[in-house]
Amino acid sequence: MEERCNDSNSRSTLYVVGTGPGGRPHMTAAAVAALENADVIVGYSTYLEQIPELLAGKEVVSTGMTQEVDRCRRAVELAEAGRCVAVVSGGDPGIYAMAGLVIEIAESRNSQISIEIVPGIAAINACASRLGAPLMTDFAAISLSDLLTPWEKIELRLEAAASADFVIALYNPKSKRRTGHIASARDIIFKHRSAETPVGIVTGATRENETVTLTTLGEMLSADIGMQSTVIIGNSTTRRWRDFLITPRGYDRKYDI
Amino acid sequence: MEERCNDSNSRSTLYVVGTGPGGRPHMTAAAVAALENADVIVGYSTYLEQIPELLAGKEVVSTGMTQEVDRCRRAVELAEAGRCVAVVSGGDPGIYAMAGLVIEIAESRNSQISIEIVPGIAAINACASRLGAPLMTDFAAISLSDLLTPWEKIELRLEAAASADFVIALYNPKSKRRTGHIASARDIIFKHRSAETPVGIVTGATRENETVTLTTLGEMLSADIGMQSTVIIGNSTTRRWRDFLITPRGYDRKYDI
Repeated sequence: MEERCNDSNSRSTLYVVGTGPGGRPHMTAAAVAALENADVIVGYSTYLEQIPELLAGKEVVSTGMTQEVDRCRRAVELAEAGRCVAVVSGGDPGIYAMAGLVIEIAESRNSQISIEIVPGIAAINACASRLGAPLMTDFAAISLSDLLTPWEKIELRLEAAASADFVIALYNPKSKRRTGHIASARDIIFKHRSAETPVGIVTGATRENETVTLTTLGEMLSADIGMQSTVIIGNSTTRRWRDFLITPRGYDRKYDI
Repeated sequence: MEERCNDSNSRSTLYVVGTGPGGRPHMTAAAVAALENADVIVGYSTYLEQIPELLAGKEVVSTGMTQEVDRCRRAVELAEAGRCVAVVSGGDPGIYAMAGLVIEIAESRNSQISIEIVPGIAAINACASRLGAPLMTDFAAISLSDLLTPWEKIELRLEAAASADFVIALYNPKSKRRTGHIASARDIIFKHRSAETPVGIVTGATRENETVTLTTLGEMLSADIGMQSTVIIGNSTTRRWRDFLITPRGYDRKYDI
């Protein structure tokens, strides 16, 4: 057993590490340290390609997009065998990402390893930063992928979030297979909000290929939206100024700005 | 004018920097670089006290909790005068924090400065990491503070989020003055979820005084909840295993774990 990845009870610790939206600048020191400490780094090849310098000298277990279960099981097995293992998760492992699958697999094996989640900058944080200040008040995050959630439940959530004036962040708005969900989602929200409601679309946030589009609920379906996009739809108070979206938290009602 | 904080159009840039939940380990490299680059650092004293080594040799404009407007106005004025200014925001400036106020103040002055938001680990990311994997599916963030939002609107959002089976993260659950809101919020959610629904309460996430409490919707009002707490209430599928909360994303319906 390698002591440097054992917890205070001498249990082997598996780290699930958020690498943020891409590249080193938006990784935390704790995330870098967890990867540096590991002997084995497990992850989806696309995320690993963004941090080549952190992989030098490590054993790397890299698999493609649809092989999350195999990848996470392998990581748990290696940690059980006493190896120092870090699972790389793009964004924040805790938000629509790898934390859940790792813990579910450990649970299914009744594994006694220690598991530590190292948080990262999620898409919702990175995209909001590119748009200015869209999330200053209550917001809902909704994934439009019906691969793992029934579409009827997604529609129910869109309806609820739109009717209660939440700012709405749409994850997985579109894929090659799913091209109509974003239009259906827009139509549900449109029942509750005006055509002029500001909308921001951020693709590849913080990466070299980053694009930011400011549009409106009325016009958004004409914009380029892809697999890597996050769409943030303002609430009834969100406004645009210069290239920023602002959802006022309410200070203007209480304070004199 | 100091060129190192000018943007490509030679406009002075004001940085709004997320310092995360507390201390250096969970700050990003980009956040550290923005503070190192600044001559003037503006922030709430409690957040500045957590990063003393980043303040050495800088002009520091530090004020108390209720003086956000004055603080942000001073930061905008200093940037307009050509100074290199960074506004420190605990957590992520884009989530219930300083990004909005800075941009609103710039808007009110029709300021032409450039503003860059440097995202950070928000309370929702940090608290989720301490609880395991509660946010693997759609979630809503709701602040229980009625200082800036009418309580009726908060109730409407609680009702909507609870009825549509969102995982719910409650910000600002309690203060000295507001002790009853958390009970009211619990009662609204209780109409839609069972008493056994897992609940996690994280206070001072990642700090020395961090506490994590796992409880249930039925029992949560007996737990210690304070100003620095974030409360995460599971949805109908959230379960507890060891000291983890898991909201399965749905892999078990599609994959064989």
